[in-house]
Amino acid sequence: KMLRIVLGAVLFVGTFPSLADASQGHISVVLLGATGDLAKKYLWQGLFQLYMDQVSNGHSFTFHGAALTALEPGQKLMFDVLKKLACPPDESPNRCAVLKDQFLKLSQYHQLKTAENYTVLNREIEMLLRQEGLKEAGRIFYFSVPPFAYTDIARHINSSCRPPPGAWLRVVLEKPFGHDLESAQQLAAELRSFFREEEMYRVDHYLGKQAIAHILPFRDQNRQFLDPIWNRHHVERVEIVLKETVDAKGRTSFYEQYGVIRDVLQNHLTEALMFLTMELPANVSRAEEVLQCKLQAFQSLQGLEKNSAVLGQYQAYASQVQEELQKAQDYISTTPTFAGVLIHSNSLRWEGVPFLLTSGKALDERVGYVRVLFKNRAYCTQSETLRDAGHSQCKAKQIIFYIGHGALNTPAVLISRNLFKPVMPEGSWRETVGQPDLHVFGQPLSDYYVYTPVKERDAYSVLISNIYHGRKDFFITTESLLASWGFWTPLLDRISHRSLRLYPGGVENQHLLDFEMVSGEVAFTLAEPVELLNPSRLMPNDYRTIQSKFRQSRLVSAWSEDLISQLASDIEKAASRTVAHSGQFHLALSGGSSPVVLFQRLARHHYAFPWKHTHIWLVDERCVPLTDTESNFFSVHNHLLQSVRVPYFNVHPMPVHLNQRLCVEEDRGTELYAKEIMTLVANASFDLVLLGVGTDGHTASLFPRSENGLEGSQTVVMTESPVKPHQRMSLSLPLINKARQVFVLVLGKGKHEITTLLSRVGHEPRKWPVSGVSPSSGQLVWYVDYEALLG
Amino acid sequence: KMLRIVLGAVLFVGTFPSLADASQGHISVVLLGATGDLAKKYLWQGLFQLYMDQVSNGHSFTFHGAALTALEPGQKLMFDVLKKLACPPDESPNRCAVLKDQFLKLSQYHQLKTAENYTVLNREIEMLLRQEGLKEAGRIFYFSVPPFAYTDIARHINSSCRPPPGAWLRVVLEKPFGHDLESAQQLAAELRSFFREEEMYRVDHYLGKQAIAHILPFRDQNRQFLDPIWNRHHVERVEIVLKETVDAKGRTSFYEQYGVIRDVLQNHLTEALMFLTMELPANVSRAEEVLQCKLQAFQSLQGLEKNSAVLGQYQAYASQVQEELQKAQDYISTTPTFAGVLIHSNSLRWEGVPFLLTSGKALDERVGYVRVLFKNRAYCTQSETLRDAGHSQCKAKQIIFYIGHGALNTPAVLISRNLFKPVMPEGSWRETVGQPDLHVFGQPLSDYYVYTPVKERDAYSVLISNIYHGRKDFFITTESLLASWGFWTPLLDRISHRSLRLYPGGVENQHLLDFEMVSGEVAFTLAEPVELLNPSRLMPNDYRTIQSKFRQSRLVSAWSEDLISQLASDIEKAASRTVAHSGQFHLALSGGSSPVVLFQRLARHHYAFPWKHTHIWLVDERCVPLTDTESNFFSVHNHLLQSVRVPYFNVHPMPVHLNQRLCVEEDRGTELYAKEIMTLVANASFDLVLLGVGTDGHTASLFPRSENGLEGSQTVVMTESPVKPHQRMSLSLPLINKARQVFVLVLGKGKHEITTLLSRVGHEPRKWPVSGVSPSSGQLVWYVDYEALLG
Repeated sequence: KMLRIVLGAVLFVGTFPSLADASQGHISVVLLGATGDLAKKYLWQGLFQLYMDQVSNGHSFTFHGAALTALEPGQKLMFDVLKKLACPPDESPNRCAVLKDQFLKLSQYHQLKTAENYTVLNREIEMLLRQEGLKEAGRIFYFSVPPFAYTDIARHINSSCRPPPGAWLRVVLEKPFGHDLESAQQLAAELRSFFREEEMYRVDHYLGKQAIAHILPFRDQNRQFLDPIWNRHHVERVEIVLKETVDAKGRTSFYEQYGVIRDVLQNHLTEALMFLTMELPANVSRAEEVLQCKLQAFQSLQGLEKNSAVLGQYQAYASQVQEELQKAQDYISTTPTFAGVLIHSNSLRWEGVPFLLTSGKALDERVGYVRVLFKNRAYCTQSETLRDAGHSQCKAKQIIFYIGHGALNTPAVLISRNLFKPVMPEGSWRETVGQPDLHVFGQPLSDYYVYTPVKERDAYSVLISNIYHGRKDFFITTESLLASWGFWTPLLDRISHRSLRLYPGGVENQHLLDFEMVSGEVAFTLAEPVELLNPSRLMPNDYRTIQSKFRQSRLVSAWSEDLISQLASDIEKAASRTVAHSGQFHLALSGGSSPVVLFQRLARHHYAFPWKHTHIWLVDERCVPLTDTESNFFSVHNHLLQSVRVPYFNVHPMPVHLNQRLCVEEDRGTELYAKEIMTLVANASFDLVLLGVGTDGHTASLFPRSENGLEGSQTVVMTESPVKPHQRMSLSLPLINKARQVFVLVLGKGKHEITTLLSRVGHEPRKWPVSGVSPSSGQLVWYVDYEALLG
Repeated sequence: KMLRIVLGAVLFVGTFPSLADASQGHISVVLLGATGDLAKKYLWQGLFQLYMDQVSNGHSFTFHGAALTALEPGQKLMFDVLKKLACPPDESPNRCAVLKDQFLKLSQYHQLKTAENYTVLNREIEMLLRQEGLKEAGRIFYFSVPPFAYTDIARHINSSCRPPPGAWLRVVLEKPFGHDLESAQQLAAELRSFFREEEMYRVDHYLGKQAIAHILPFRDQNRQFLDPIWNRHHVERVEIVLKETVDAKGRTSFYEQYGVIRDVLQNHLTEALMFLTMELPANVSRAEEVLQCKLQAFQSLQGLEKNSAVLGQYQAYASQVQEELQKAQDYISTTPTFAGVLIHSNSLRWEGVPFLLTSGKALDERVGYVRVLFKNRAYCTQSETLRDAGHSQCKAKQIIFYIGHGALNTPAVLISRNLFKPVMPEGSWRETVGQPDLHVFGQPLSDYYVYTPVKERDAYSVLISNIYHGRKDFFITTESLLASWGFWTPLLDRISHRSLRLYPGGVENQHLLDFEMVSGEVAFTLAEPVELLNPSRLMPNDYRTIQSKFRQSRLVSAWSEDLISQLASDIEKAASRTVAHSGQFHLALSGGSSPVVLFQRLARHHYAFPWKHTHIWLVDERCVPLTDTESNFFSVHNHLLQSVRVPYFNVHPMPVHLNQRLCVEEDRGTELYAKEIMTLVANASFDLVLLGVGTDGHTASLFPRSENGLEGSQTVVMTESPVKPHQRMSLSLPLINKARQVFVLVLGKGKHEITTLLSRVGHEPRKWPVSGVSPSSGQLVWYVDYEALLG
């Protein structure tokens, strides 16, 4: 009945353009959760804005609020909200008042609880259309409901509320879209059983923020300036930041399950990252091309490691959780409320450029921005006083997409004046001056071209307008959602039990949350302050290297990091001494995980190492191609050789791959390697052999009870490993024992048992091959870390 | 007579410690050019300081001023200078007065003009020593004379004034030490015929500047802090700067021959560069170790190119030269008075770090400094207001050795407080506060730990003291001098006729001399302002590359240097495009001398080249070991692969050396290479093949009338060269013609004849193999320089 009245009223008024020009048909908008917080705060206002914008553009509209509440109280609740709808400042008050009145008349409340309710709703819409002789253009269902309600609603809409053929269906979904890759996949599969991909509009309201929404158009309209500089040669770093002053109080039941990474980084900040890093399609207004480029950008992201992130939790969080969720006093939450994450892209354009994503609650200010900082390549000859006067090339060059709040308190785009004067769409962005003395990002505002939106639009208004226009690139597709979860889930798994830095909140945080990049990882700049520290987090602090004896040979022991430093130094010393004496240094390296840290240390800290005169040999190799990630040589190459300058001729991978096949006897790889050693290494006596030890006592690829290599005259042998890949090539024990120095590296708790055993047994190479390491005239040194030594 | 009187007076006074404690013998100091400018201004004061410092330390002294002037006027001139000697503020006035009186009595003037004069001087010194019963410790001859006088004086000293065995001779030489490598070698050879290396002390007074002299001790005493950060991973750039406000007026007769590079960069700034970049010897107080490390640092410097420097000349210079040197009105000076030079070191420690050396006259301020700027790796979470308050990690981190003048007006060492609190020798440097608000290098002085010398010492005092102590590391050895000229001379040759940017001088220079780094080169930031340009300076501007047709294919032609740049850019473009498209780039390179310049250009200027995804193949190879200097691969390796990061697996030398023997048929090297190509290169179609042309029309190793490789299905063949080494391996013409692009590079007058011939003949591969290069579906481009094209 009500619908009829409403429509009747509209039709009666008649002169309104809304229906006079409904040549493109009628659109029914159904807002589910019509009396909830989000609806109250943003959605109804966004729908009203849509109506104001589109009323004369060819469509007619009806607006259907729905909730579980019964009809009468629901109606009252909803119309209380609608009556408070605001008129935007850029609208004439008269027009707005008339349109608001009309909007109220076009709006109606429904209780949607049972399957029956949905059938009724559908019947009402059909009836109206028939009665008024309107063609149906489409239906929008906006899900502003908790995620657990999704499936039921989706099923009802699919079975009862689909528009007839020729009209479209658009369902709008609000996050969270899962909790990790698996749950997101499940949810996506479920939704796909009800809706086609093109029918679903997943909202990330950041895509409606004006500054974020303008990143792609900006890149497109300023191609001439950006093409030469939008790459790793010119960009020093990118910061994508959303800081909040509020904490999670009152919302811990949600927050405790999600945390800052799921709440902000996986979605909002990742979307901004994609807009920055993706290749620009030829036509940015074609949603499909944009989405394609975005997916490619995801594929270029380098996987996150445990130390790609620093995590924190504000101090009051624990007690808020205990109180709100009725947890025990000793309940410890591992949910981060602050995260700083370092992301790298492997694309040719961005390789090596750090992208820093940061967000947190209970910080000292509320602000959001995307900041691209360019490298300073200039030298300014004049003195500083002169330099600071103009827009010199020596000042920082940056482009900032300012999302809002903070010092500027408005969305804005800032471009350093020494960079270029950008092309901006006049209708939507205008140049502004602001307070020229205000300092933002290290410089006075007068150093930038500053643009602000002509009309400031709330994100939801922007998004609702884009739903209406069917612009799917403003929403998260299933593919892109899963790509994002695929990227973040491994990090979430790795950090799920990691300790968090506690911070007091607000300005009290001081420098506690500052972090820095060190070799592709991030770490807090300040050491953990003891007074905040959970005592169980303290590490024993005797970092000295101890020296003693192990199996009658020299033993060097320390915490692993110090042990590696010591070992790297000792290798460098041996190398320098040997090169000074004989002009070259023959170093045989083992594979496995322990030496990786050593390789990195050698590559990054030993600049005086005589690499030019060093020959690199392999102690053992797996029968896989050298480019296989399982290959020992591949590891030596990636962690060491790629970073230093060993001449090509001095690199000697084992010939496991000959004639396009692996370790075939008739290719005689072992003989080839033995010959190469004989030819180049005087007396086949390596200057230094680096070995490891397996938990079974194997060393090199010499396993217990091996038929080859433990004795005899053969210098390079084929062996069988108990674990895959089984086939191995290895230096033999007799050859190893001819070396001038042999260093054995043993790291980690997992090696404690074998270490203890080895300290007791004698020379029994058939049982424990490493016990046969005993250089005939050379020196043997054991490098065993405290964990392996002391357990 | 006078000497006797002087000595008599000293002996009479008797109680002075000078001779009472002359247990270590007597030192005679002879200052040649005793009445010249340098002597007046610095040297006598330095000698007086030496006397004050050392009077009671076991040596006795006499000081002999010498010049060409006759005895009486010379005496008067010299004693007028001596009477004005100042007492340093840190000396008690009484002691100083007494010592000055004594110093005057110990000083004597000599006319040194003829051989006879030198014999007399020597006799007088000997007589004095005999009469007073003094043991001779040594003699110092300080050459403060113009360079043309050096040889004569050196000959006289060597033949007449050498001390007896057991006593040392030290001759102190002032710059200029030559004008380029050749003249420096000549001068050095000449001096070596008179003096032994250890007898010569070449002065670079910058080594006596307190801030410069403290670089090495600072690095040594702060090893614990600097070890992890004094390298390419942490240093963003280094600036070594000496700016002057004065111009060359009154000194153009000197300056016009030298210019700013010879006057300041080749010596002063280069010495600072060496102190920064050299590896630190274990013991920095051992002069020999220091000198050794310094020489190694020279060897690591990357050669300078024409565009490694920006050059300028202040506008008034031309008229000053015309006036002072009586040149015609249309005389044009090409002497630079301003230079900014970008230097790279190839050492593992410094690879890629830009060192910017800058100096000039008529600039806006007088200042000298060495500034090490570290990379900013931090993200500071708190807002800017908070950030700027403390010594946050987000502020710039720098270490500055402030030579003097400028805003600080004192020598100083500045270390950012967010870096570390340095160890400084308390006796000689003290922490100071200065004006905390003063801004230096972008930050308030309060952001730094600031140290100034306890006693400010003039450079010459420091150096004279070091001559006395025999500290040769404060002076320029012959080896290091020649290393420096060897480094600078190629640049000086390349820029000798280059046009200079004119600048008005002083603050008027504005941003005219700002410059910036672009792919390993430097260029002024602002375009040449037309109104300042002397029209006669316009160089013939036919440096454009011309494009046309050659043998029906595209022809690119230019002067060789520009041609190589163009070719390198084209190769990079092809590489980037191909990698973007298919993920890898297969590049086949020829040997020979022409491509060497290309390889160097690719290695040094093309940082964006996707080396990581590039495969390097050889077009042909000589049957010699890969480490033989005749090997094509050896050349590719040394000039290209050593400087870029091509993964080991992507490097494909031809297998000419198998089973320890060269190109033996049964080792089937050609088949192996063919198989490798088939396996890795799609359709065996290289992305780019680079060829050359021999004077006989050969290309690759395909010679006229070759039995193999000109046709047929074989892809890799053995051929015979008419010149040694005869045996070759080569890609065949059919394989080359399968490539997607073939570039042929032809350089030099020697190729003019064959180029002319080729422009006329058709497809006759048996006569001229290169005429058979004709890609079946790929593109062929000829890169022929003007000399080859036009003769």
